[in-house]
Amino acid sequence: SNEEGARFPPDMMGSLVYVGAMTVEEALSVEDIEGTSVGEALDHIGHRGTAPAPGPVPRAFVELHIEQGPVLERTGFTIGAVTGVQGISWSELTIIGQSNHAGTTPISMRHDPGLVAAKVAVFVRELADELGAPLVGTVGQIVLHPNLVNVVAATATMTIDLRHTDENTLQIAEKRVADFVAEAAAGEGVDVAWRSLARFEPVRFADDMVALVEQTASQLDYSHTTLPSGAGHDAQMLARVAPTAMIFTPSHNGLSHNPAEHTDPADIEAGANVLLHVLYKLAEEPT
Amino acid sequence: SNEEGARFPPDMMGSLVYVGAMTVEEALSVEDIEGTSVGEALDHIGHRGTAPAPGPVPRAFVELHIEQGPVLERTGFTIGAVTGVQGISWSELTIIGQSNHAGTTPISMRHDPGLVAAKVAVFVRELADELGAPLVGTVGQIVLHPNLVNVVAATATMTIDLRHTDENTLQIAEKRVADFVAEAAAGEGVDVAWRSLARFEPVRFADDMVALVEQTASQLDYSHTTLPSGAGHDAQMLARVAPTAMIFTPSHNGLSHNPAEHTDPADIEAGANVLLHVLYKLAEEPT
Repeated sequence: SNEEGARFPPDMMGSLVYVGAMTVEEALSVEDIEGTSVGEALDHIGHRGTAPAPGPVPRAFVELHIEQGPVLERTGFTIGAVTGVQGISWSELTIIGQSNHAGTTPISMRHDPGLVAAKVAVFVRELADELGAPLVGTVGQIVLHPNLVNVVAATATMTIDLRHTDENTLQIAEKRVADFVAEAAAGEGVDVAWRSLARFEPVRFADDMVALVEQTASQLDYSHTTLPSGAGHDAQMLARVAPTAMIFTPSHNGLSHNPAEHTDPADIEAGANVLLHVLYKLAEEPT
Repeated sequence: SNEEGARFPPDMMGSLVYVGAMTVEEALSVEDIEGTSVGEALDHIGHRGTAPAPGPVPRAFVELHIEQGPVLERTGFTIGAVTGVQGISWSELTIIGQSNHAGTTPISMRHDPGLVAAKVAVFVRELADELGAPLVGTVGQIVLHPNLVNVVAATATMTIDLRHTDENTLQIAEKRVADFVAEAAAGEGVDVAWRSLARFEPVRFADDMVALVEQTASQLDYSHTTLPSGAGHDAQMLARVAPTAMIFTPSHNGLSHNPAEHTDPADIEAGANVLLHVLYKLAEEPT
């Protein structure tokens, strides 16, 4: 439940609760941008469950997913045995400035939160370029208020999404962004409130579970490689309590979170077969 | 009607139609961001008028307004005799990129319209700093779609508000912004569609009308000065067909388009008295 987290952060909320890293009460009280809570939204659609959390610990957890990236397609492999999941840092900044008339307020008297948001968005890209792959940095959400052509904004709300496979580099990136925000805010005379929407360290799946996916793909005659996951997945939460693996299938043009997202039926079948046979083997092993 | 223009551009729409510079049909067909037209909105509130446009040409036009800026308060004058209105250039940019997953899409494969919007917003401020006052430049509106923390945006819509008292400098600023947008868009591999929301050249009020405001303020014992208007006003449209003047009163802390906008009652009284006596004099003059 709520794996995406776009309306109610953090992402992977359901699996986080399942493994006991977040309480049910805490999850149900998370609110969206309009103040509706997870609990209210679940009641509204009649989907508030009654099972206890944390849930039973499984013998193992295996997740099949599209890659959501371009690696498998570009390298020509059908199956990806996922080595782990990169760390994720999501922040929300609320920048509070001084709303004013765009025609009569001299530049020197402005405290424009929209400008600071724009500077931060540009910096996030510059930092990703400077520190290099596999760091990715994204500002996908900017909301100005009142958001009018002839009014210097009163407030700007924005999100920053940083990801890296190495926890140390991810922390360096977070620090550099925080320093830049402080400097840009001071320069424009605006206040900034930070809120962490999600923060997960990089996860490394158990070597024998990764090897099991590779061996199974080989036995079924599917070409395969290993790769880390760029996206967050429920598997990274289950990895806290049980041996965990992930199987990736190719994404057409690497597209995801896009209406053109597509995986060929033959690749879906291959992924499903690897999942099935990995589960058979795990079920046959002594616990 | 629709002097502000924030929902239905251009601003000063009613006076523009009154003086015959825009047809009634054209004005009624302007749509807001959700596709509602001016005509539909007027029907909805029962305010669609039947008077013919263009309207009768008046002997003269005099407009009383708060300054909406800090000049009168800072210099200690009660009345401003407005010399003219700075030129206004409003543009809307729709930047079309490639929506994608924020975790799995390498920086080198991105076509992020939100980043281009941010770069443009930063450039508008840099340009205002470089060309100096009285140029003002504002990006008051940015809308990303789908506007989610973990998705590289598909599209960004933004507005650019540029104003200057000199038409030539305003054109230079417009050219510099257009060049920067083209360069930033090419660098990120995104497309940009431009739409002009409003474009008015600077207006200079007739010298004898400015002098009439000054003389009247003197006779009533109010301190006064002359200054240009930073904001757009209906008077600049009426100036196309009739002798026109504007009277400014001080704005507390220069604030406007802000809930804290305030003008002292004594200053409002002073402005109203100047307006009254200027109109008496104009009415007594032979036509």
